[in-house]
Amino acid sequence: MSLDQYMEEAIQLPTKVVAVAAAEDEEVIAAVVCAVEKKLATFILYGNESIIKSLLATRDNGYDVNQFVKIVDAKNERDAARLAVQGVSSGIANVLMKGNVSTSVILKEVLNKEYGLRTGSVLSHVAAFQIKDFDRLLFITDAAMNIAPDLNQKIEIINNVVNFARRLGITLPKVAAISAVETVNSNMLATMDGALLTQMNARGQIKNCLVDGPLALDNAISLQAADVKGIKGEVAGNADIILVPTIEVGNVLYKSLVYFAKAKVGAVITGASAPIVLTSRADSAETKLYSLALAVRSVS
Amino acid sequence: MSLDQYMEEAIQLPTKVVAVAAAEDEEVIAAVVCAVEKKLATFILYGNESIIKSLLATRDNGYDVNQFVKIVDAKNERDAARLAVQGVSSGIANVLMKGNVSTSVILKEVLNKEYGLRTGSVLSHVAAFQIKDFDRLLFITDAAMNIAPDLNQKIEIINNVVNFARRLGITLPKVAAISAVETVNSNMLATMDGALLTQMNARGQIKNCLVDGPLALDNAISLQAADVKGIKGEVAGNADIILVPTIEVGNVLYKSLVYFAKAKVGAVITGASAPIVLTSRADSAETKLYSLALAVRSVS
Repeated sequence: MSLDQYMEEAIQLPTKVVAVAAAEDEEVIAAVVCAVEKKLATFILYGNESIIKSLLATRDNGYDVNQFVKIVDAKNERDAARLAVQGVSSGIANVLMKGNVSTSVILKEVLNKEYGLRTGSVLSHVAAFQIKDFDRLLFITDAAMNIAPDLNQKIEIINNVVNFARRLGITLPKVAAISAVETVNSNMLATMDGALLTQMNARGQIKNCLVDGPLALDNAISLQAADVKGIKGEVAGNADIILVPTIEVGNVLYKSLVYFAKAKVGAVITGASAPIVLTSRADSAETKLYSLALAVRSVS
Repeated sequence: MSLDQYMEEAIQLPTKVVAVAAAEDEEVIAAVVCAVEKKLATFILYGNESIIKSLLATRDNGYDVNQFVKIVDAKNERDAARLAVQGVSSGIANVLMKGNVSTSVILKEVLNKEYGLRTGSVLSHVAAFQIKDFDRLLFITDAAMNIAPDLNQKIEIINNVVNFARRLGITLPKVAAISAVETVNSNMLATMDGALLTQMNARGQIKNCLVDGPLALDNAISLQAADVKGIKGEVAGNADIILVPTIEVGNVLYKSLVYFAKAKVGAVITGASAPIVLTSRADSAETKLYSLALAVRSVS
């Protein structure tokens, strides 16, 4: 599957609702209008009503966006975040999207014990890449949320991404626990965690996926590279999911794919009771749309 | 400059000599013959003389390789490594190349206090990438030798790569100390080291280069990405050298560039009194040649 195929599938679904926290932002409104025009979702825009209305008006190109968009006035960004989170937890909306509100403020509301979207798992970032000359979507986790997850956090990160991939139709995702080498080295924590996660998967402690590690990136994604190293198994060369050991590894891989391999990408935050779209100003309009498409498709 | 231009420059130089430790290997001989045919260097092949001779004979395609290749018989791989290192330290050869000998064996000889190639610095791996649609060679260090260098080791790694880049004609290399973010965060060691290295450079404690960090990969290599984040200075967007915080970051970036961005690469070990070419079986013939070209060019 490609991001474009998931976009198509998301468009075909019965309409989903996205709750946007603090929508009073030009780029956020641009993404909303674009998604509406594609019939990807309808939106509830929480925030400063008059600014949101005027931003929507400047985007008015004859297509009646307003019938697919509802505005709910909010006093400030914290209020907008709270209302948007409550919109999702009450079932009015299916997906949460960050607007012009800081990440820390929206995540605090997401983690609120009364009305938040907690599941007991860590929140983790999943990015899905469509790469030229590569035959499948490649999921990378976690490039943005967890700095240096320990073994238990890695298990939760795997569970989050596996649940997400399965909702996208990948019934038994193949997870490669990445390090710099493919042998266990007691001086390299990532190699030891890779081996532990593999064996925990073999013992049924990590379910609904196949885990193998440690693997270097090349033997995770290239059958030929795996073969040169004599690595067998179903994951090596065939990984769907790249579990990185630290945020620096994920972030560099993310940026390398976008800037040097010209890959297309969409990303969501997983681990909450609904997917969260947390795009940043640096993301392209295309990335924002793909992120929305993945989130919408995953709640079907 | 591109790898191909460095190859051309290396070919134009007065002939350099490469000492190969344990040359009795089909792929090593293939690389040697290819380099000889390009007039890139002459070779002293240390190892099992009869095997080397028969391997050379199978490569005989009318071009008289033997006049550019000298064979020195060695009893075993350790003996071959010792003789090759001594060949370089005595000045007979300019570059050391690993053949069919384990990395640990050859590095032990390199670090020998009597006849080795020690300079007092750590040894560090430098890879140079020629990337499509990117206007300059991008150096990445260290993707293969130092697992999790501390601040002092990072300084030595910077000095090593800067010396190497300057020998290649880049008089004031721009070094980006990479992390996942571009702000200092006391929970992220890479960001703190990045800031410390920057200030040490400003104070003249790290010379002959410009250092800036922490930078994320995108704002190190893209002026537009740096601009979105409001990052000023001469390094952001213009980095020649990517200093990675851990071997996992470097290794993933290396493999991503080769497998997904289809970049060309050559690599050497720096920090010894001569460049060391440490290619592995997984490297393409092209990578081996580029590595030799960079090593030869850097000793001019």
